[in-house]
Amino acid sequence: MAILVVGSVAFDNIETPHGKVDDCLGGAATHFALAASFFTPVRVIAVVGEDFTPEHEAVFTRRGIDTQGIEHAPGLSFHWTGSYVGNLNEAKTLGTDLNVFETFEPKIPAAYTDSEYLFLANIDPVLQARVRKQMPNVRMVCGDTMNYWIADHAANLAVVLRELDVLLINDGEARMLSGEQNAVRAAEKVLAMGPKSLVVKHGEYGATAFFGDRSFTGSKHVTVPFRAPALPLAEVVDPTGAGDSFAGGFYGYIASRPVLTPAVFRTAMFYGGVMGSFAVERFGTERLQGVTREEIEERFKLFREMSHLDFEGA
Amino acid sequence: MAILVVGSVAFDNIETPHGKVDDCLGGAATHFALAASFFTPVRVIAVVGEDFTPEHEAVFTRRGIDTQGIEHAPGLSFHWTGSYVGNLNEAKTLGTDLNVFETFEPKIPAAYTDSEYLFLANIDPVLQARVRKQMPNVRMVCGDTMNYWIADHAANLAVVLRELDVLLINDGEARMLSGEQNAVRAAEKVLAMGPKSLVVKHGEYGATAFFGDRSFTGSKHVTVPFRAPALPLAEVVDPTGAGDSFAGGFYGYIASRPVLTPAVFRTAMFYGGVMGSFAVERFGTERLQGVTREEIEERFKLFREMSHLDFEGA
Repeated sequence: MAILVVGSVAFDNIETPHGKVDDCLGGAATHFALAASFFTPVRVIAVVGEDFTPEHEAVFTRRGIDTQGIEHAPGLSFHWTGSYVGNLNEAKTLGTDLNVFETFEPKIPAAYTDSEYLFLANIDPVLQARVRKQMPNVRMVCGDTMNYWIADHAANLAVVLRELDVLLINDGEARMLSGEQNAVRAAEKVLAMGPKSLVVKHGEYGATAFFGDRSFTGSKHVTVPFRAPALPLAEVVDPTGAGDSFAGGFYGYIASRPVLTPAVFRTAMFYGGVMGSFAVERFGTERLQGVTREEIEERFKLFREMSHLDFEGA
Repeated sequence: MAILVVGSVAFDNIETPHGKVDDCLGGAATHFALAASFFTPVRVIAVVGEDFTPEHEAVFTRRGIDTQGIEHAPGLSFHWTGSYVGNLNEAKTLGTDLNVFETFEPKIPAAYTDSEYLFLANIDPVLQARVRKQMPNVRMVCGDTMNYWIADHAANLAVVLRELDVLLINDGEARMLSGEQNAVRAAEKVLAMGPKSLVVKHGEYGATAFFGDRSFTGSKHVTVPFRAPALPLAEVVDPTGAGDSFAGGFYGYIASRPVLTPAVFRTAMFYGGVMGSFAVERFGTERLQGVTREEIEERFKLFREMSHLDFEGA
């Protein structure tokens, strides 16, 4: 089933211990869409400027992603400048130029209105809420956010949180949103804000899902969180987009299955980790553009081997 | 099969956000022995002072732990004073009084010489090496160490590392020992120092095992690490001894099995996490003294449910 994603399509200037790239195609919606495209059809709502060329669009269309919801506006695309020098676990934002995103008014093409799955990637919660409103009949809504919206746009964010089946954030965001240092108490407070479930990403340590709604995945074991591993990597070239790629793998897999069960949710967490592990192997979206479904399945097996008791080696 | 553990039996003054306790029975060998005693017979080599009473000894003997290797010396027992206020993830050592440990000369009782499993808990690597030398025919040797020995006793520690089947340390110690920030490269460097395998503990994020020796657990999949979860806890009362309790559960399970296979190693990692999760629920060894085998099995199932794809809820 098709996922509709709204979020940023952007150009990034990134510096990591492995080097520096400028004007690299990025943005939350881009990473998410590429990762999800290996599992299910994806449709994108975003705005780009005149610097977004047919060559950039081909990055999406080559993966079968529907780009008719990408609006072309006069001016420059959203630009982000960040550095991971000294700390691969957290980006230091050096510059944010919203450009065409400043006046973005999301419009949903008629061909997108039958999308059953909605992903609200990390953008202004006002825009997230506006898209949600235009898609009242979706089967499931997942979303992401970040420290900037948590700190300064709490009331707008609260509206979005009430609409979510799954909120995907990282440890720091969960602490900030809840005001709690302890992971379990933080999860309880975030779930009380509305999301039926919460996936907290721990970077190199994987991710944990917490469930607030008893009926959400049909599991009675609502008090038991689920932990998915991450792949220990000898080299992380560029962490940019790892979280969005996780979300893409996770939600792409869910949208590809007829019914959401606890097993589907768990498997989706593993595919999230798999796509995140590929994303960081090269700068920008390079690795996600080149990865194959066979490589994805192979790495999924590796995640299972890495975490399951009954794998016998042999 | 019996495990012989050499390490500290001590009294701790501990402050955490949950309160403050003084002269609480502790020490690496104590936590390890209690945790391991649920799986296999345990024998302790340590030294205590006149402040160690029959009541303290009963904490060991009630769990069937053999205490004839605990030497009683004139003076006071080892005392440690530490605080977790402000950071539950890392102890701040406020004071270390070695007392009777200063001149400790480990002697192995005749009844201990048939022990097949040796655990070198965190003490001076000179003492670890001396005990190892007196037990040349053990089947397996595991050990622990800490930042103090890594920083200032590297040459002595190097001798011990060459003797180990499994080294159990935490993230910070792995980085310090290897000089590498990246977890995979750190593991490679540590394994090159001698241990056949390395278990790195990540606190609330669980633990990862890395394997250096192809034949160690009979697995051909030597390049694949194994990740075991930790239980997300709403309340950590006292983290003291969590790592030693992990080691006790881990090694106790291994010693209880006839043969070390990849599945046994993996299951042992889970039991390590289980015993660590109990240890932090109360101050000192209180929880490990009171826990039952049934509670351990129940929590083991929870760890599996929390991490395995095929658990269907219901």
